[in-house]
Amino acid sequence: MTDLLPDPDSSDNPGGPTPSYHMDPDEFRRHGYALIDWLANYMETVGERQVMPGVEPGDIAASIPATAPEKPERFEDLIGDLDKVVMPGITHWQSPGWFAYYPATTSGPSILGELVSAGLGVQGMLWSTSPAATEIESRVTDWLVDLLGLPAAWRNRTGPGGGVLQSSASDSTHLIHVVARERATAGQNDRPAFVAYTSAQAHSSVEKGARVAGIEHFRAIDVDENLSLDPEALRAAITADRDAGLTPLIVTSVVGTTGTAAIDPIAAISKIASDESLWHHVDAAYGGSAMICPELRHLQEGAALADSYTFNPHKWMFTNFDCNVLWVADRASLIDAMSITPPYLRNAASESGKVIDYRDWQVPLGRRFRALKLWWVLRSYGAEGIRHHLGEYIRLTQAVAAKIEQHDHLALTAPVHFGLVCFHHRSGNEATDALLNEINRVPNIYLTGSSLGSERFIRLSIGSTSTTAEAVDRLWGIIDRAAST
Amino acid sequence: MTDLLPDPDSSDNPGGPTPSYHMDPDEFRRHGYALIDWLANYMETVGERQVMPGVEPGDIAASIPATAPEKPERFEDLIGDLDKVVMPGITHWQSPGWFAYYPATTSGPSILGELVSAGLGVQGMLWSTSPAATEIESRVTDWLVDLLGLPAAWRNRTGPGGGVLQSSASDSTHLIHVVARERATAGQNDRPAFVAYTSAQAHSSVEKGARVAGIEHFRAIDVDENLSLDPEALRAAITADRDAGLTPLIVTSVVGTTGTAAIDPIAAISKIASDESLWHHVDAAYGGSAMICPELRHLQEGAALADSYTFNPHKWMFTNFDCNVLWVADRASLIDAMSITPPYLRNAASESGKVIDYRDWQVPLGRRFRALKLWWVLRSYGAEGIRHHLGEYIRLTQAVAAKIEQHDHLALTAPVHFGLVCFHHRSGNEATDALLNEINRVPNIYLTGSSLGSERFIRLSIGSTSTTAEAVDRLWGIIDRAAST
Repeated sequence: MTDLLPDPDSSDNPGGPTPSYHMDPDEFRRHGYALIDWLANYMETVGERQVMPGVEPGDIAASIPATAPEKPERFEDLIGDLDKVVMPGITHWQSPGWFAYYPATTSGPSILGELVSAGLGVQGMLWSTSPAATEIESRVTDWLVDLLGLPAAWRNRTGPGGGVLQSSASDSTHLIHVVARERATAGQNDRPAFVAYTSAQAHSSVEKGARVAGIEHFRAIDVDENLSLDPEALRAAITADRDAGLTPLIVTSVVGTTGTAAIDPIAAISKIASDESLWHHVDAAYGGSAMICPELRHLQEGAALADSYTFNPHKWMFTNFDCNVLWVADRASLIDAMSITPPYLRNAASESGKVIDYRDWQVPLGRRFRALKLWWVLRSYGAEGIRHHLGEYIRLTQAVAAKIEQHDHLALTAPVHFGLVCFHHRSGNEATDALLNEINRVPNIYLTGSSLGSERFIRLSIGSTSTTAEAVDRLWGIIDRAAST
Repeated sequence: MTDLLPDPDSSDNPGGPTPSYHMDPDEFRRHGYALIDWLANYMETVGERQVMPGVEPGDIAASIPATAPEKPERFEDLIGDLDKVVMPGITHWQSPGWFAYYPATTSGPSILGELVSAGLGVQGMLWSTSPAATEIESRVTDWLVDLLGLPAAWRNRTGPGGGVLQSSASDSTHLIHVVARERATAGQNDRPAFVAYTSAQAHSSVEKGARVAGIEHFRAIDVDENLSLDPEALRAAITADRDAGLTPLIVTSVVGTTGTAAIDPIAAISKIASDESLWHHVDAAYGGSAMICPELRHLQEGAALADSYTFNPHKWMFTNFDCNVLWVADRASLIDAMSITPPYLRNAASESGKVIDYRDWQVPLGRRFRALKLWWVLRSYGAEGIRHHLGEYIRLTQAVAAKIEQHDHLALTAPVHFGLVCFHHRSGNEATDALLNEINRVPNIYLTGSSLGSERFIRLSIGSTSTTAEAVDRLWGIIDRAAST
């Protein structure tokens, strides 16, 4: 044996029991209660906090020693540092004044589900390494097929499709680009020069996913006046690429773009993908959750014909990051691309073919019991509860949008979908930026801006767990005053 | 506006306040305490449970309704289902009788860190979206540079390298294959046919990472009698590939292979990588944690010359999955490959160049505040505590290995490193498999088997958080009895 360590017992611990540095269950109880209280207090007070921290780069790091402690520290001191060291550098995404980016919703059931998942500490890579993790995940993704009105063939229990949790929509979109590439190259010696397509308004993760997957060419297709992908431009680009000797591979359509929540014409894109033998991936990272409201499903008509579909419960379904759902219409191509079985992972259950081994549905091997929190959210809210709150957010959004339409100094920048209003000052970019700065001077409110070409606009995103009608009213008062001066 | 929803107020909630389906802070306190108690009880009793669940495929799913509930369920009932529905399907990775695979260590400080991270619900994609998440992550990965005796140039605060947390070693290894590919193709029109190399004993994630990254050729290089990569075979393979017109791109060396914890000759591989201009990635997923013991660092001599290095605190540093550390010697090539900046992510801090935006260090955009739990683990145990426990596990491992060496019916299958003993029955495969089955008949103990070519062996992996000398003694008694009958 090569790695002999000296035996310390003869020197620093003569005859005594082995010391333990582990936190024992009683200490865990005590500190656990204290942190549950700390979090409950955080929920109660987050609305009073300044959303954007006032720290400068390096401030937080400077309050942490440059080297790790040699001796254990008291856990009470670590808890104390939450207020002293951590809070000054936290951006409060859970504030009722959070109208920035898109929401990153969390909730009590989700937080507690994450706690239990961490405490169980299981590895869900194979069915056999924790059957409950796999079966709850496949059941819950099946539930969501029905809740969102998606095709029955995407259910795990029927197939040929299936659903799986991933870390983020970026991961799912990257994964699908790899799967499409592998399907197209299977059994071939020469690899063609592939092309990936999406709207010019799609999330940067589509371009990044294509690049990471080694897809040589990426086309950001023009959008129409609604900021939706123009199907004729897509068809023309595909034709031009074929004429140039390239191989069109995949198109990603979007239900709720990141800039303006625009919605692509999913049915038309499905038709083109079918005609041209392209993989059609639907990125509904943001908009997907809203499909729990049947009245909105017409917005993604044609999604049932897609090859894959992804959405983020961690955006708008009260489930803390990370929790992304990916469905594929045909699980075989996903598994074919992702499966490798070394001897140390062989087991009877996998070889029986009766179980799902989710490691074959993703890039990494390891996976935690991520379905628990989503299961708890869906049961704790019920379909009714989620539908209720999303409906409320959408109605609040529509009310704000109506006020902007009627405002002397403000105008909508883009059609309003889901919980996002994009607007600008009628006097132009400078006034828009000044307005955004003025709104953001209110410490416990935060909005972000963006641009379309050279036109600046303000994104008002409604729908955090803590959002209330009162908070939106107050925000509107601030916007109205600031825009009118 | 296209998406009008009917206003429900006039019908189902006339004049009353908006109903809320959210768990309020008081309910969160109550259910949080209950779940802290439930977990503390789990920690106290996990050693009595049957490690491998007795369920058949489909049993857990069958105990869950086929569709989501329309109405909210009581949270007490969800907690009750932990024992009724979840526990029957849990594989108890945290049992003191867990000697299977490698450990997936967790700990009180880590579980509670995960809880707080979920509760804060921040998105750490940019420095500005939660500076504390970024700066604690960069500080803690710097701490680990020193704790593991790695090169000072890998520290974020000095560079040119840097450290980042990823989800798993699989993700890091895949990412590095992409970075190496992008570095090699930057500014070139034609893409050569690349080759990736690693030991035939490396983890399947290396082959999978290369495949996902679209590296055309993968070589599993022969190992020597110690199951370590043979440097001469590597050099010969590179030469043969160059002669065939291929482009050698990257070699991954391993500190603690998954099958037998074998260690590749890192210094010799560094030399070859340097001579041949290959990227050299070190996969120390398992072995890396043990480098906190200075006596063991000679095992990875030469790692300081690597281009990248990854290890898993979620394997052997008391931090629950997921928590992987990746260092690169030159952060520029990582950021060049991963950075895309759409307008909605622009902000003053990023453009100042004074901050790290970790979204540019990974494939996905989103990221949670994963550093909190690792920070708490390092502070709560202190370097001394982690060193103590890993040292204990290694001494227990060596003691078992010594007994196997002297046993009439058992023999070591491979050199013993870290916390893993690989052994077999001297009478051959059938006796080895029978022995493994006999050991695993003890309900609260579990070991896994594997094979080298056609030779079956048993992996005895020591080092879960709950592992004790007594549990290892008991296991040895069982092995000794079973092997001698």
